[in-house]
Amino acid sequence: MVTVDWLTLSDSFGVLVFAISGALAAGRRSMDIFGVLVIGFVTALGGGTLRDLLLGIHPVSWIKNPVYLLLVTIAVILTLLGGRISHRFDERIMIVSDAFGLAVFTVIGVQIALQQSFVSPPVAIMMGVITGVAGGAIRDVICNDIPLVLKREIYATASAAGGIAYCLLDYLGTPTLINTLSSIALVLTIRLIAVKAQWALPSFSITR
Amino acid sequence: MVTVDWLTLSDSFGVLVFAISGALAAGRRSMDIFGVLVIGFVTALGGGTLRDLLLGIHPVSWIKNPVYLLLVTIAVILTLLGGRISHRFDERIMIVSDAFGLAVFTVIGVQIALQQSFVSPPVAIMMGVITGVAGGAIRDVICNDIPLVLKREIYATASAAGGIAYCLLDYLGTPTLINTLSSIALVLTIRLIAVKAQWALPSFSITR
Amino acid sequence: MVTVDWLTLSDSFGVLVFAISGALAAGRRSMDIFGVLVIGFVTALGGGTLRDLLLGIHPVSWIKNPVYLLLVTIAVILTLLGGRISHRFDERIMIVSDAFGLAVFTVIGVQIALQQSFVSPPVAIMMGVITGVAGGAIRDVICNDIPLVLKREIYATASAAGGIAYCLLDYLGTPTLINTLSSIALVLTIRLIAVKAQWALPSFSITR
Repeated sequence: MVTVDWLTLSDSFGVLVFAISGALAAGRRSMDIFGVLVIGFVTALGGGTLRDLLLGIHPVSWIKNPVYLLLVTIAVILTLLGGRISHRFDERIMIVSDAFGLAVFTVIGVQIALQQSFVSPPVAIMMGVITGVAGGAIRDVICNDIPLVLKREIYATASAAGGIAYCLLDYLGTPTLINTLSSIALVLTIRLIAVKAQWALPSFSITR
Repeated sequence: MVTVDWLTLSDSFGVLVFAISGALAAGRRSMDIFGVLVIGFVTALGGGTLRDLLLGIHPVSWIKNPVYLLLVTIAVILTLLGGRISHRFDERIMIVSDAFGLAVFTVIGVQIALQQSFVSPPVAIMMGVITGVAGGAIRDVICNDIPLVLKREIYATASAAGGIAYCLLDYLGTPTLINTLSSIALVLTIRLIAVKAQWALPSFSITR
Repeated sequence: MVTVDWLTLSDSFGVLVFAISGALAAGRRSMDIFGVLVIGFVTALGGGTLRDLLLGIHPVSWIKNPVYLLLVTIAVILTLLGGRISHRFDERIMIVSDAFGLAVFTVIGVQIALQQSFVSPPVAIMMGVITGVAGGAIRDVICNDIPLVLKREIYATASAAGGIAYCLLDYLGTPTLINTLSSIALVLTIRLIAVKAQWALPSFSITR
């Protein structure tokens, strides 16, 4: 099927991009090669793993299909080889790739959640957001930072908007392919406009 | 049934209180609205989620019954609206509410664990403590603090005492309602006396 | 069976050693008795728990067999009693014990993973490493440190080598007892030589 193949490819691309971003974060903390691999793995596959554990889906995606482990390993090796020049990567390419990964992970997360009989739309939207942002958040916790996604600009919000759109279109009976493409486009658009325009959610700050 | 309704209400109250305390912690770290929602959610539902995952209970409570997500959202909105005045909340009200949440979560955790055929009393007590304290501990780890519960006064100990009492009364054949009420009262009493009298467990400190 | 008994004993020894190392880490952060117990528990049983959750094995080892909880409690009490003299433990004994724990946990992790029909060798090796090192890593995250295992010398690498050896020997049809002993010996040898010779993986460091 066209949809599946195209989505699988996009998913693999998302895994590669997230693994590279994880490996770069590990490099900034002078981890050894094993550490770089672990952080790359957690960033790329942590969100989907948490989703599968919460929904009780077994085997977890990368246990069922170890090609994911291979993808992460390739991404980490590329980053290591790119080494000292990797921080000069055109930052715009990374931001667009990352936004695309976020969009694809979100929609796949929502789709997998909706396949479970016991999942209601609010939970499905949440699973989309978890698939999209939890990997990066776990990476930040392991690296001893407060997760960026909890403090920063429109990132999880773009993911949530895509999840809401998907559930709505699904409810209205839109064909899956159109629904998938529209929701991915929506996340991508919101995220990229947010970066360009430096949109941010209002923050909540109290002092004692 | 009177027991169930009363316990469900208390459980909902616990979720509200824990979500507010999480939202306040997020506000102290200037998170954005999404971050406040996540921390409120983790604080209120993280303990029960960890318990369900460890026991292999699916669907997890808030996935089965999304009203929990609504409760957390309401608590977070209230805290945000209360905003700048929220830190002036009468601290005694928060401490008593939190102690009540701890007590109810503990007893519910023990009850759910004992319903599983493979659970022995020590594991059930542990599941009660996890239900009561793990949400706050995960909140602290995400917020980049060493969990308060590992360093502070009698908090987990009050929870453990309630769990032990529940298992003991259950073993002696006490009717569930009496057992539930007594154990909740015990946790509440120990916790509030501990706060009042500034009781603390001995700490263990080694230097190299 | 001789194999099982011998391996169970070694596993229990690993639990004791890892719990002591966790309790000492907690002591260095002046936690209270409850905190020492939690960190001892997480260090000793966290890796196996994460493995069981990822593989969907229920009940989790220590829930099925609460003797593990007893072992951790004993180890923690011993450490507390050893108290102020515990940091004068002959460091070599701790390093050898820890390396032995790492070796046994790795091989047991690989064996349990291979028993699941859906597990391929790469995933089994990964489960061995997770069983061996994740407990210590979670301990470090809770204690607000970047996990040592991501930055330090040959530790996870020794575990991975043992996992690879086990899968290879298993594939070649080696009897389980010989396979188990050889793989444990391999992890132990690599780890101890690495400590002695201060081997380390190359680290990856980028600056912005």
